[in-house]
Amino acid sequence: MRNQVVISGELIALEGLRYTPAGVARVALTLRHSSQQSEADGVRQVQCEVDALAFAGVAEKVTRFAIGQSVKVRGFLAQRSMRSRQLVLHINDIILE
Amino acid sequence: MRNQVVISGELIALEGLRYTPAGVARVALTLRHSSQQSEADGVRQVQCEVDALAFAGVAEKVTRFAIGQSVKVRGFLAQRSMRSRQLVLHINDIILE
Repeated sequence: MRNQVVISGELIALEGLRYTPAGVARVALTLRHSSQQSEADGVRQVQCEVDALAFAGVAEKVTRFAIGQSVKVRGFLAQRSMRSRQLVLHINDIILE
Repeated sequence: MRNQVVISGELIALEGLRYTPAGVARVALTLRHSSQQSEADGVRQVQCEVDALAFAGVAEKVTRFAIGQSVKVRGFLAQRSMRSRQLVLHINDIILE
């Protein structure tokens, strides 16, 4: 089952490095994306804020970025928690845009 | 700015065809995705429900699908509305999985 996201955006929030109960590094961040996307024979102005999580080595890589930087991330969508339908992007890789 | 999503899932909700004020066909639907994704040197069981929208020809194509079918969609993420941060997937293409 496919679940792939590639999205660019400005880093607008970046929490400090934390660790899961199993000792895995974890970072929460938020991207602000804005672009024009083609849809239904026209162009749609798109804006969204994407809450994201990074773990282990990717979390450590994320901490080297700074708020305000434009980044491109690759990852997958998941539910925030068992009780919340809100979508969160799990980041497998992040690079400067 | 990149904004690309490819995700598979079961069609669990499918509204009837409606039209925007500009007369463009519009359909709202929900996918339930579940898979295993690799993350931080491990495997994560992923589950999420993705609210999605399709317009014009893609909306008409969507109406030919039925609840319970497994589909794969390609599209982009956007904010539900100016007032809601909730993410909605805008579908550019949909095929049977």
